[in-house]
Amino acid sequence: METLLRRCQIRSQIVRECIAEFLGLYIAVLIGSGAAAQVVTSRGTHGNYLTIQLGSALGAVFGIFVARGVSGAHLNPVYSLSLCVLGRHPWKKLPLYSLSHLVGAFLGAATVYLQYYDAIQTFSGGELLVAGPNATAGIFCSYPADHLSFWGGLVDQVVATALFLLCCVALEDQRNGPLPDGLHPVLVGALILTMGVSMGSNCGFPLNPARDLGPRLFTFVAGWGEEVFKAGGGWWWVPIVAPFVGGLLGTVTYELLIEAHHQTTLRLIKKKKNNPEVKLANSFK
Amino acid sequence: METLLRRCQIRSQIVRECIAEFLGLYIAVLIGSGAAAQVVTSRGTHGNYLTIQLGSALGAVFGIFVARGVSGAHLNPVYSLSLCVLGRHPWKKLPLYSLSHLVGAFLGAATVYLQYYDAIQTFSGGELLVAGPNATAGIFCSYPADHLSFWGGLVDQVVATALFLLCCVALEDQRNGPLPDGLHPVLVGALILTMGVSMGSNCGFPLNPARDLGPRLFTFVAGWGEEVFKAGGGWWWVPIVAPFVGGLLGTVTYELLIEAHHQTTLRLIKKKKNNPEVKLANSFK
Amino acid sequence: METLLRRCQIRSQIVRECIAEFLGLYIAVLIGSGAAAQVVTSRGTHGNYLTIQLGSALGAVFGIFVARGVSGAHLNPVYSLSLCVLGRHPWKKLPLYSLSHLVGAFLGAATVYLQYYDAIQTFSGGELLVAGPNATAGIFCSYPADHLSFWGGLVDQVVATALFLLCCVALEDQRNGPLPDGLHPVLVGALILTMGVSMGSNCGFPLNPARDLGPRLFTFVAGWGEEVFKAGGGWWWVPIVAPFVGGLLGTVTYELLIEAHHQTTLRLIKKKKNNPEVKLANSFK
Amino acid sequence: METLLRRCQIRSQIVRECIAEFLGLYIAVLIGSGAAAQVVTSRGTHGNYLTIQLGSALGAVFGIFVARGVSGAHLNPVYSLSLCVLGRHPWKKLPLYSLSHLVGAFLGAATVYLQYYDAIQTFSGGELLVAGPNATAGIFCSYPADHLSFWGGLVDQVVATALFLLCCVALEDQRNGPLPDGLHPVLVGALILTMGVSMGSNCGFPLNPARDLGPRLFTFVAGWGEEVFKAGGGWWWVPIVAPFVGGLLGTVTYELLIEAHHQTTLRLIKKKKNNPEVKLANSFK
Repeated sequence: METLLRRCQIRSQIVRECIAEFLGLYIAVLIGSGAAAQVVTSRGTHGNYLTIQLGSALGAVFGIFVARGVSGAHLNPVYSLSLCVLGRHPWKKLPLYSLSHLVGAFLGAATVYLQYYDAIQTFSGGELLVAGPNATAGIFCSYPADHLSFWGGLVDQVVATALFLLCCVALEDQRNGPLPDGLHPVLVGALILTMGVSMGSNCGFPLNPARDLGPRLFTFVAGWGEEVFKAGGGWWWVPIVAPFVGGLLGTVTYELLIEAHHQTTLRLIKKKKNNPEVKLANSFK
Repeated sequence: METLLRRCQIRSQIVRECIAEFLGLYIAVLIGSGAAAQVVTSRGTHGNYLTIQLGSALGAVFGIFVARGVSGAHLNPVYSLSLCVLGRHPWKKLPLYSLSHLVGAFLGAATVYLQYYDAIQTFSGGELLVAGPNATAGIFCSYPADHLSFWGGLVDQVVATALFLLCCVALEDQRNGPLPDGLHPVLVGALILTMGVSMGSNCGFPLNPARDLGPRLFTFVAGWGEEVFKAGGGWWWVPIVAPFVGGLLGTVTYELLIEAHHQTTLRLIKKKKNNPEVKLANSFK
Repeated sequence: METLLRRCQIRSQIVRECIAEFLGLYIAVLIGSGAAAQVVTSRGTHGNYLTIQLGSALGAVFGIFVARGVSGAHLNPVYSLSLCVLGRHPWKKLPLYSLSHLVGAFLGAATVYLQYYDAIQTFSGGELLVAGPNATAGIFCSYPADHLSFWGGLVDQVVATALFLLCCVALEDQRNGPLPDGLHPVLVGALILTMGVSMGSNCGFPLNPARDLGPRLFTFVAGWGEEVFKAGGGWWWVPIVAPFVGGLLGTVTYELLIEAHHQTTLRLIKKKKNNPEVKLANSFK
Repeated sequence: METLLRRCQIRSQIVRECIAEFLGLYIAVLIGSGAAAQVVTSRGTHGNYLTIQLGSALGAVFGIFVARGVSGAHLNPVYSLSLCVLGRHPWKKLPLYSLSHLVGAFLGAATVYLQYYDAIQTFSGGELLVAGPNATAGIFCSYPADHLSFWGGLVDQVVATALFLLCCVALEDQRNGPLPDGLHPVLVGALILTMGVSMGSNCGFPLNPARDLGPRLFTFVAGWGEEVFKAGGGWWWVPIVAPFVGGLLGTVTYELLIEAHHQTTLRLIKKKKNNPEVKLANSFK
């Protein structure tokens, strides 16, 4: 075993991080979409709306536990972007992380399809549909509710992702209060459950461009066809663009309303003004 | 980014605290009323009574996490009053905190209306009603159940807020037992869930005058009209007055039955009697 | 405030402990029976079977948080007895603790009736019944399901309380593994939720003689009449006797199968054999 | 009490460990199958699909709390095998642990039958059936859904157990991030809840050969007859074989993608290459 593992060691830090991000989101999608597949294909006998949200939340929890020590477990290009903007993550890693997320989400969806192949075939009578009572595309990625207008969808996703990122950044802010090791992933899971119970009915709270686009691409190639891009009046790009906008909005809001005013920040910044060489550990530089 | 943040620094401690209280309750209402909006407008297909309570609880959790390091995250004028009475919070901050709560709750409700605008319009056929099968006012603030008498409503709110504050004060009482950092906000959330599952059916457990009045004012100006104040026989002032009464009752009950008798308290008080200069750290002075 | 509190100080340790036990179980019953009252009187529109169990669990959690630092928060005569048998609690305190539990449970039930007076009157049409579709006695204490035989009820309560106490003693056993401060009350709550979801359908998992008898006495005097003792073929004494039997069985089982064999125990006991003066800190002496 | 316990002391480490593993899985099955018995025999009035999953999860939590300090609380032969393959558990203990698991699961199922005897008799009209509307065999062990093909069942169990073990090994990996004492059992419970909400509808997520075979053997001897082995086209061996395959797959995947690349691992291995005597504490040697 040891020899095998030694031969597989990867010395490149960035490759290790991308593998962790890939595996983390793979697990999150496998669990999250699995929960949706279970409820949809059992027609509600093996779960309900709450169990789907629990699946999304718990998928994130375990995805984070798997990746946290290697890459910090972003699992979302919006979160990576937010950290880049705050100067806490190098910009050059952003495309590689995002690609890892996309591949992880794609393969997670593929595994769910494999695991629920019999169930989906039986449920849908073998026809892979995007809309209607036997639709199964909603297992994998988001589609807008009938009542949702184009602008309503944009607003929903901007508000939801702003709240999501604001809370994520707050949980990371050690100066706002400490958090025991091991509680952080659980709270991020609770945050995703929060999104599900309070901002899920308009369009299924995508919040994550890679987690939405990856599975959508999978359904495109796996037999649901180009309807996955046409549905909802070409809805597919909203859960890609709006989360970036909302994520930045939420991050900046937290910085402006809370983090900028921490006393330790003020003092550190004053020091730095006089002595620019001072390193700002754990700071927002 | 750094320059931008530095320019926005606020040196006034009280302004920073008010912003944190504002943002904390804004988030709590955004999440809590969002959960109600989701269940009401989806007619129960995207959640149920339990998910609404989960939304209220999780809204409080993340509201507290956002504000805790700056202002202590009261998020409720009753809690602020209770701390003032116990001598743990300056009386002069009480009106400013309460106003921040009111503004936060008002804008939180406004954001929920924005986010669920399409859903509410579709659900209600464009008519914003306080009562009946298509009523939507209950998304934002409390109304009494049909069976509830005036005195029954008073009793319900006094008992519920007494229990709520008694437990809040107990969780803060370090001499009753320590609590790991980061668990406190989660337990306050669990306490709100408790209120929802065991004291929610009479009038929706307002518990918080600002959280009830702010959204009620919003619905008043946003189109629900003066019916929001007339409904339930002029119910609106009960969730403002009763929580203050209940909150004081609960706080004093805990102090008299538990905290007054802690051994360390007794000793400290004896010391202080002989030497009035001794500072009572973490005490109820 | 300080003067008021100083005047109310109680120097007697046992009185302080009894007040804490009283208040703890009062809160647990207020929350637990409140959750049942909410679901019953709303005919399931404001909760379901799971929210009742959540209420029981969360009631215990906050009852424990209120009392833990003063008396250890037994909240159950069976647990007190179990600690007495293990030599960890003085026998002479057992009757006083049990009486405090009984009074707390009685008054908790009375408060629930007060809080839900309008709802219970409306639901039952003013008739306080023990059985039938409009029965409300089950809000307060346990009654057996129709299918349950006398022996089945005994077995159910012995097994359930044995499991309950076995797990309680295990959670207290520091040598089996440490537990962070503040997690213990939450886990006892989870244990009560466990009882509710897996051993609740036969007779409502009383587990606690005081928590069952106190509210039953209240319903007897409050208008449900002697039917509360006659129902289920004189069922009332089963949830008083069986939990004591089961509690002892569970405690002894844990001691014999797990705690007796801890290495530190063995070594301490060997030492003590040679030197009987050695104090056994945290031991089962 | 002390004398009694001293007389019962067992000096053999392996016997103590087997007793702990036995008791741990006994408790997990008693709670988990009890939750299923409650929902099935009450025809859904005392719980739903989610409460069954909560029962499975909480059963594991308390089973682990009871056994963790003595044997590490494997409670699953697949987990024991996985640790053996990683060199963290001696191979010679594997059969004894597995046998303890089998006996614990068998007796746990027997106790559930005892506790729910009246309920099962009333529900089934006295006929112990494996299939149909009055079937009760599903309370104790897994049967495939109608839609599930043989290969689908294999894939489902390989994928589910791979995910399960991958996450278990990740939670144990201290170099991936620390975990507070006492949170670990709770997270394993959350992982089992995860399995239940996202991979439970195909065949009930057995994941554990002993937990499936033990109760199946019990139902075989207790009156359900040989149909428990014939049902689903001789399904019974799938939840025995597939979890071992999946468990190894998940363990190796985590080792290859995450653990092999930890920096501390790399350094330790380099050291060890030069100096083979170095002991690898907490390592995968």
